[in-house]
Amino acid sequence: MQMPEPNAAILSRKARIVERLRGVLSADAVIDEAHEVRAYECDALTAYKCPPLAAVLPSSTEEVAAVLRICHDEGVPVVPRGSGTSLAGGALPTADSVILGVARLNEVLETDYDNRFIRVQTGRTNLSVTGAVEENGFFYAPDPSSQLACAIAGNIAMNSGGAHCLKYGVTTNNLLGVTLVQMDGTVVELGGAHLDAGGLDLLGLACGSEGQLGVVTEATLRILRKPEGARPVLMGFSSNEVAGACVSDIIKAGVLPVAIEFMDRPCIVACEAFAHAGYPDCEALLIVEVEGSDAEIDEQLGLILQIARRHDPVELREAKDADEAGRIWLGRKSAFGAMGQINDYMCLDGTIPVSELPHVLRRIRELSEGYGLEVANVFHAGDGNMHPLILFNANEEGQLEKAEALGADILRLCVEVGGCLTGEHGVGIEKRDLMADQYAPADLEAQMRVKDVFDPKWLLNPAKVFPLDASAQRRAA
Amino acid sequence: MQMPEPNAAILSRKARIVERLRGVLSADAVIDEAHEVRAYECDALTAYKCPPLAAVLPSSTEEVAAVLRICHDEGVPVVPRGSGTSLAGGALPTADSVILGVARLNEVLETDYDNRFIRVQTGRTNLSVTGAVEENGFFYAPDPSSQLACAIAGNIAMNSGGAHCLKYGVTTNNLLGVTLVQMDGTVVELGGAHLDAGGLDLLGLACGSEGQLGVVTEATLRILRKPEGARPVLMGFSSNEVAGACVSDIIKAGVLPVAIEFMDRPCIVACEAFAHAGYPDCEALLIVEVEGSDAEIDEQLGLILQIARRHDPVELREAKDADEAGRIWLGRKSAFGAMGQINDYMCLDGTIPVSELPHVLRRIRELSEGYGLEVANVFHAGDGNMHPLILFNANEEGQLEKAEALGADILRLCVEVGGCLTGEHGVGIEKRDLMADQYAPADLEAQMRVKDVFDPKWLLNPAKVFPLDASAQRRAA
Repeated sequence: MQMPEPNAAILSRKARIVERLRGVLSADAVIDEAHEVRAYECDALTAYKCPPLAAVLPSSTEEVAAVLRICHDEGVPVVPRGSGTSLAGGALPTADSVILGVARLNEVLETDYDNRFIRVQTGRTNLSVTGAVEENGFFYAPDPSSQLACAIAGNIAMNSGGAHCLKYGVTTNNLLGVTLVQMDGTVVELGGAHLDAGGLDLLGLACGSEGQLGVVTEATLRILRKPEGARPVLMGFSSNEVAGACVSDIIKAGVLPVAIEFMDRPCIVACEAFAHAGYPDCEALLIVEVEGSDAEIDEQLGLILQIARRHDPVELREAKDADEAGRIWLGRKSAFGAMGQINDYMCLDGTIPVSELPHVLRRIRELSEGYGLEVANVFHAGDGNMHPLILFNANEEGQLEKAEALGADILRLCVEVGGCLTGEHGVGIEKRDLMADQYAPADLEAQMRVKDVFDPKWLLNPAKVFPLDASAQRRAA
Repeated sequence: MQMPEPNAAILSRKARIVERLRGVLSADAVIDEAHEVRAYECDALTAYKCPPLAAVLPSSTEEVAAVLRICHDEGVPVVPRGSGTSLAGGALPTADSVILGVARLNEVLETDYDNRFIRVQTGRTNLSVTGAVEENGFFYAPDPSSQLACAIAGNIAMNSGGAHCLKYGVTTNNLLGVTLVQMDGTVVELGGAHLDAGGLDLLGLACGSEGQLGVVTEATLRILRKPEGARPVLMGFSSNEVAGACVSDIIKAGVLPVAIEFMDRPCIVACEAFAHAGYPDCEALLIVEVEGSDAEIDEQLGLILQIARRHDPVELREAKDADEAGRIWLGRKSAFGAMGQINDYMCLDGTIPVSELPHVLRRIRELSEGYGLEVANVFHAGDGNMHPLILFNANEEGQLEKAEALGADILRLCVEVGGCLTGEHGVGIEKRDLMADQYAPADLEAQMRVKDVFDPKWLLNPAKVFPLDASAQRRAA
């Protein structure tokens, strides 16, 4: 993946820049030694690495504003970073950039159960938001697989989802307000703890903007009351197509499970070997979970099982207790770990209309055969959010490039059938050059002109989201 | 309400402008006779009237683009108009503006039940979207009171809600994509029939932008499967405070009715006299509706009634059949008509945290007494979206101004308690000068800079949304 040449003038001014940063932060919050900045050289897309000029760890919105003012003044690019769990290279540094990590901004600022919201600093991890309210019977709905580690800042930047977003929506549906620091240090409040707001919806714009518009330091999040109970059912089918058709029929029937997860044979085999979840030997598995009271669960599952039976399932296993439910989920949740044990893999993230599932799975198989690289499919099928895993050997010359080419073809396929390039991982560096496949020039230009407003010098999170040549032109202008 | 002086140079060029418009539209689609343009002199905020320079009724996205290109070229302000049902003056013309009505853009372009969406031209009315899919068991969720008349274009412009948005969300939660024509005639596609999208979320930005960014000509809308059944329960209470506390407790318990509607005594009396709904003689009424299968309804209502009983209700009446359900809703749905028969009224639209309901209702009563103007309250209590109706006599000198001043005080109160100026009616001309109470200068400046991008000459829907002095400066710049 090509990255822009570092700006030599910035590199030569490093000492002054670091000194200015030390002037506004505590001594241990500015990191510039070569062996220390290496901790920030990549995110979870580890195929790409580049140590930054320096890294800073501010402890307040004011400190973030002070850092940005200095970098704006010095013309230094800034790469905001949550916990660095991006699978799309969303927090990959450039050599001339300052990493702005929000890890020290991790306080709960306010909890309001009457109005069902929590206000947190955005360095707080996703799971610890739920941790702060679960004693009182509440939870925060978006649940990315990385929820133990990933920060709310990154969730907002990428508009993250998770297995349960079929029912609860993604981050944008659970975000009420943010404090955003613009590149010039201006602090703005977008949204608030209330429905809607007057004027332009800059909150919706900020959510999913991948650090292109500013740094979000505080967030007001919707919290929900925990459901009484939940119960998954495991369904095995004789082909991907049949499983896909079953998903379509469930959605079409208007039932709303909290999750419909899909795994194909390569994925089932790997997960079973890793987690011993007792998965049946079949071509495709669905895990469908519903929640509510026992009566509600019985009723909804009754309808879902009736639909499933029409597709001649190889297996239908309703969890009889918490233990069995745990085992059913264990396999799915260990999918990435399981694949990682046997292969290098690249995890894609595209979205398609649910009715296109069978067609897209068939085309992925053809593409996979064409490239000679195996693809395992595990994804949130209910809302069409796919995560094909391309398996390859990173130590074999040329395989990474081949995997990238196959990934690009699969994502183009998503766009072709009326879907889009990303569901929850964001564009990052991974998909920036595919944006031209998704958007017409006028559509992309409209987005870039909005970026111009918030970051006229194009210093924020460089080389991400927009095609590299377009952003290079913008920076030069 | 002050409006900007019309631009004399534009008025003097009227003949040329109309001729150019006739060059791109059919003869009957350009209206410029004084007696004809009067049909467009106001929207549902009828206290303010001003005939436009001309009105045009394009029949396609291309015609809309052609009209906008001409107006952009001539520097003529354009006021986009759906069905003209805005209660906030969102479609009020200026004397030098061209009204762009989308009424002729009313086709269904695509219906996809497998992926649960419909694509329509935006002049189509809200109710006729449901009309197009209900035979197949689907519906479009947002349901403003004006749904028989209001256009999807206006729903998108104002991010409209309705009685059932507590469960289903407002327009932005049900909108998948739009075709937007910018002021210079550029056509862009925002979003699409899929979850999320890469890059900046311009779709979220466009929704609720009140015609400030462009004209939306086509929309892809989420459709949902109709629930099996629904059942309302009527609850009477001895005071507004007790009813408010009951609403808070229902929300806090995590039950999710589709609607929680609130009416206070002045409203109950007027509705009962008008609709003979059989409402009890009490201080405050709630209508709480749940939906699903009979078993689900029984279970949810059981929990809700248990909460209600803790608040010593004067009456608890569960609808036993469709007939009784219809009567319970009839009173609420005729509220505006009922009030209109006995008074002139101004309908406000503010949002507050649900827990503040008792406090805000008490303060509204004090303000009402201070001004000597009665206020009737009827609103979507579940999500804190209030619609206080200020009663006044339009024929009595000074009463309109007094009602406006009281309205401004009530809306400031909403902001004070952590709420906001609007829930679903938009800012329009009504609340533009209160935006400075809601937003800090930097917040407002960020919004206006985004408007600059889409409409650099500030020609689109003039004198709305932003404080008049701020938008005048922007136009002059």
